[in-house]
Amino acid sequence: MSKPSIPKGTRDFGPRVMARRNWMFGVMRKAFERYGFQPIETPAMESLQTLTGKYGEEGDQLIFKILNNGDYLSKANADALAAGDSKALTSSISKKALRYDLTVPFARFVVMSRNDLTFPFRRYQMQTVWRGDRPGKGRYQEFTQCDADIIGSDSVLCELDLITLFHEVLSELGVPGYEVVLNDRRLLNGLARAWGIEDQFQDFTVALDKWDKIGNDGVRKEMGERGFSEATIDCVMQLFDLLAVNNSTERLAGMKALFAEGDEEANAAYEEVVELMSMAKASGVPDAQLVFDPTLARGLNYYTGAIFEVRVPDAPIGSICGGGRYADLTGIFGWDGMSGVGISFGADRIYDVLEHYEAFPPEALTRPQVLVVQLDEDGTSHALEAMRQLRAASVRTVLYPDVVKLKKQLKHASELNVEFVMMAGADERSKGVWTVRNMQTGEQTEWPLDEAVSFVRS
Amino acid sequence: MSKPSIPKGTRDFGPRVMARRNWMFGVMRKAFERYGFQPIETPAMESLQTLTGKYGEEGDQLIFKILNNGDYLSKANADALAAGDSKALTSSISKKALRYDLTVPFARFVVMSRNDLTFPFRRYQMQTVWRGDRPGKGRYQEFTQCDADIIGSDSVLCELDLITLFHEVLSELGVPGYEVVLNDRRLLNGLARAWGIEDQFQDFTVALDKWDKIGNDGVRKEMGERGFSEATIDCVMQLFDLLAVNNSTERLAGMKALFAEGDEEANAAYEEVVELMSMAKASGVPDAQLVFDPTLARGLNYYTGAIFEVRVPDAPIGSICGGGRYADLTGIFGWDGMSGVGISFGADRIYDVLEHYEAFPPEALTRPQVLVVQLDEDGTSHALEAMRQLRAASVRTVLYPDVVKLKKQLKHASELNVEFVMMAGADERSKGVWTVRNMQTGEQTEWPLDEAVSFVRS
Repeated sequence: MSKPSIPKGTRDFGPRVMARRNWMFGVMRKAFERYGFQPIETPAMESLQTLTGKYGEEGDQLIFKILNNGDYLSKANADALAAGDSKALTSSISKKALRYDLTVPFARFVVMSRNDLTFPFRRYQMQTVWRGDRPGKGRYQEFTQCDADIIGSDSVLCELDLITLFHEVLSELGVPGYEVVLNDRRLLNGLARAWGIEDQFQDFTVALDKWDKIGNDGVRKEMGERGFSEATIDCVMQLFDLLAVNNSTERLAGMKALFAEGDEEANAAYEEVVELMSMAKASGVPDAQLVFDPTLARGLNYYTGAIFEVRVPDAPIGSICGGGRYADLTGIFGWDGMSGVGISFGADRIYDVLEHYEAFPPEALTRPQVLVVQLDEDGTSHALEAMRQLRAASVRTVLYPDVVKLKKQLKHASELNVEFVMMAGADERSKGVWTVRNMQTGEQTEWPLDEAVSFVRS
Repeated sequence: MSKPSIPKGTRDFGPRVMARRNWMFGVMRKAFERYGFQPIETPAMESLQTLTGKYGEEGDQLIFKILNNGDYLSKANADALAAGDSKALTSSISKKALRYDLTVPFARFVVMSRNDLTFPFRRYQMQTVWRGDRPGKGRYQEFTQCDADIIGSDSVLCELDLITLFHEVLSELGVPGYEVVLNDRRLLNGLARAWGIEDQFQDFTVALDKWDKIGNDGVRKEMGERGFSEATIDCVMQLFDLLAVNNSTERLAGMKALFAEGDEEANAAYEEVVELMSMAKASGVPDAQLVFDPTLARGLNYYTGAIFEVRVPDAPIGSICGGGRYADLTGIFGWDGMSGVGISFGADRIYDVLEHYEAFPPEALTRPQVLVVQLDEDGTSHALEAMRQLRAASVRTVLYPDVVKLKKQLKHASELNVEFVMMAGADERSKGVWTVRNMQTGEQTEWPLDEAVSFVRS
């Protein structure tokens, strides 16, 4: 027998971690519902063709595919088999795959359920996703995303709603020093127009995204290799220079100064971002926690307007949330022109940040409150009655199931970290009382059962 | 572009269904915690070798296997490839699989976490499982199990706890006419000893399990084919005859009468079942809802003591819950002798039963309570302020994001099924009031904002 193990990049969650995760999900769920988002869930397994081609070449390779059941080789692509070509073989031996995010499944859901939904439609979805990434700090192969999207409206009030939602959820969770980082793809489009690199827009955004890791020189080199001119690269460098400006409004103005004169599209987008930031401020989001970053690009091609990321600059972890506006998400499933905007909370990374800062509140703990001990066989029905009454009063209660030495039962109580132990030997039973032991202080008091129940509840 | 679809046997859950599912999971979670069970979660993906060999030949074939990422053919078993042998190939191109239940992963978890746990350990686990079954009524390829187990104690009080948990959860959910069906594998062992068929115990239980579908004649035929003597088959038929006895205590006595004289093991088990049923009754489980069934066998081999099933005889669906005691669950992972007992609530089938009887309570509904409409651009900041105050008071609130005709906004409100619409045009704003429309009655009243908030909350 080999030692049991679990796949790399996956985790077991024991009671202590689960209590914290459940607390975290509870805070999020409450906020989502207060904002009028409605819950949906989609299957873990999607048709392979629903997922492929949506995440770029690199992303597609990270999708976990499920082997067809039964005699899958009987329908396998014979040429690919003969050639030993794994990539070409896959679609003939796998029809299903695990979802890679919650956005593409949501788009599919909206198209399939369009007749049952009312638009603008606001959904939240908290489910597991799977990616065959190399496991590492804050990077898991199986993790939970918590998404909120508003689909069917162009209004900037949707962006505002999501920014204040970020702010409320992260404050309530107690994430220290987070920044909601904002940019807009339409502003980046304006720069591309000004610099004549509209054809290379994708390469341009890829270079921006890499700056964090490779710095000015790295970006210069990479853009050079991708065929950008020195003059263009100098222009792009102005964008990174803007990061030295601390005030978001000034940064934004600095970006505007780079647009081509009379670019009305870019200027209109600029006005909208100014308005959005001012409304966010009026809605109580502190200046310091809403940061405009002209170099934020977010690789995924489907973003067309505002883009968001949440960072905790001092924590040893990448971004913990992301999102943005997409003009045409459902177009990939045959329904054009539905504009929407959505954000995703990375629950596992938020957990890691809270753990890093020891920021979980004490109430994020699920444990039994009372252990009822059994001192002798004659007391069993008596103990059962106590347990019933405690539970009927919603006290989380466990009865020690065996008659063993009191010391062993008390040790169990203290390992379970219960608040109280209740016990009644023959003597107490004849007096009609229960001894209640406070496990924190060691103090013991005697009560009739109903008063004991009230005592441990209070 | 092909029409989007989802894999057979999987489902999307829209807002209405999700609200009901969340209500159902909430009832269960609360009960589990009141009983002192602690939450754990395990990965959806387990190592293939953790799962295979645990569910019998038939079960193993229903496990969904995950294709290795990258160039999986490079490490494929060449002989199996050449022979086109799917079954022999699998382990060389797939290392991971989706969990088939929550019991085997739990056993693995206990072995891996044994040093962090205190025994008896009580866990609950509510997660998705996957089976490549042919989809059908109440049979899905992806469904949710809600399990509670107590591991590390032989006491019959554990069985009692699980029976009362069944009773409380199913009552609170409002499942109509359910029966907790009980038997004990040790009683079946006693019969096998009495009839000299200990070697054929597995075939005997398989025949019992099939009686529902094939009846007396079918079981006779099947047992004959499997080499049981006519005399033995006549004995087994006495067991089915006992089903005509309506009183569980009498049925149990009838079974006892079939034991070999002086079989102390069987008689001890009998005494324990009698005690369990009497304690369950004393704990408030009605006689009619705890049914002793001498023919209940439950195919899985790991059960060694009490076995449970929950049925709703009048509903067009199989059993909705199951469970039992296992003397040695963790033995398969190298840790012998840990006795435990566990039950599993089939959430999706319970949902189907509640739906069938239209038994969901009206509160199992998550919807926004208030829609704030926008009558003109000037009123936006005013509307935002109302939305903020409503949400601060925990009222689930949505602002219609665009200034469009009131009729369209009211239509949206009624499709969302909100309770109230709030609106303030220039006139109301100058008076400092909001109009609150009750969407049920159509009645409209005017209030200053803070009073409007109190009004819709009450």
